[in-house]
Amino acid sequence: MTLYSYWRSSAAWRVRLALAWKGLPATTIPIDLRAGEQSAPDYLARNPQGLLPLLVDGDTALGQSLAIIEYLDEVHPAPPLLPADALGRARVRAAALIVAADIHPVNNLRIQTYLKALGHDSRAVDGWARHWIADGFDALDAFAVAHGGRFLHGDALSIADLCLVPQLYNARRVATDLRRWPRLLAIEAAVNSLDFAAPAHPDNQPDASPA
Amino acid sequence: MTLYSYWRSSAAWRVRLALAWKGLPATTIPIDLRAGEQSAPDYLARNPQGLLPLLVDGDTALGQSLAIIEYLDEVHPAPPLLPADALGRARVRAAALIVAADIHPVNNLRIQTYLKALGHDSRAVDGWARHWIADGFDALDAFAVAHGGRFLHGDALSIADLCLVPQLYNARRVATDLRRWPRLLAIEAAVNSLDFAAPAHPDNQPDASPA
Repeated sequence: MTLYSYWRSSAAWRVRLALAWKGLPATTIPIDLRAGEQSAPDYLARNPQGLLPLLVDGDTALGQSLAIIEYLDEVHPAPPLLPADALGRARVRAAALIVAADIHPVNNLRIQTYLKALGHDSRAVDGWARHWIADGFDALDAFAVAHGGRFLHGDALSIADLCLVPQLYNARRVATDLRRWPRLLAIEAAVNSLDFAAPAHPDNQPDASPA
Repeated sequence: MTLYSYWRSSAAWRVRLALAWKGLPATTIPIDLRAGEQSAPDYLARNPQGLLPLLVDGDTALGQSLAIIEYLDEVHPAPPLLPADALGRARVRAAALIVAADIHPVNNLRIQTYLKALGHDSRAVDGWARHWIADGFDALDAFAVAHGGRFLHGDALSIADLCLVPQLYNARRVATDLRRWPRLLAIEAAVNSLDFAAPAHPDNQPDASPA
């Protein structure tokens, strides 16, 4: 498989974590979001939405991180990323969507760029991001109180955890004070204590930049 | 089952469509987003995220429209809302997420309110919405060219269509010129030609307002 990725794309990072968790090898092709490579004609021909990640499996190209991870979980079910019961799956999907629908898309690079074009400076844009991150993290924390254990949903790693870890990294980039959510930090530590996590981290990507 | 809903919430509308498609009765409890009822303590006790919709099934409460619809599709599989094959499911989920992650959360009421608090007037906020709607509809149109038929994915109704129809309604509310996407309008017409669709429409909700 081939993964079109950017080292700091949290949506790409989710898929890198899923591939690593399942022990599935994939060739990484970096797409430089800062240079606008996601809007180049050859990338748009593969993914008309012009977003990352894109997974190519044989002659099939799949976009949208959660759809990709569900596909990987269906085709390569072990080790799983969703609970065995419908209610557990619904809860995990809901927690994943708190990040993947209600936090991340509101704060990603294209939104930041547009806010700056509307006249907001970096400080205001970071404040915007912190607002929606705090809102979503409060919801995830309530989820963890109700359903969590070692991970967001009980003691089994799930798609929800793969969404949480990159979002915490993004939160630090905009100087979010994370001490408000000790449960989420403990879950992040639990994920990072597992061997599969480190190779998926932005710093360990071929296009990682010291800048 | 009980659905906490607001007549114009497009996320709630998706779930109303799913319930109707499967012939599942549900009692609607209106939550007035304009009056801030989603932030009232008794609602937050049920859904700490303070968003709609919320489905209560027995003693279980589920948030996040896509997670709810997948749950309904697993527990009540006929008639289906996802294809039988993993690749088809991945594609449908990706199309649904174009709306549910990349269009809708960027434009919903809480974002509009925040943009206005930053000093942008209604005209600017509508322009913001049209920008992201156009971006997402272009991607959905490319999806329909590649995979569509009578509906967004082939000739079978899917979760993706349940996301598209409310988003087209939202697009009209901000005066989007929809003539650019005739394929999407034809799919909307195909959905609306089916008997199940009308009862889920905002105008047919108990809290519909002429305002």
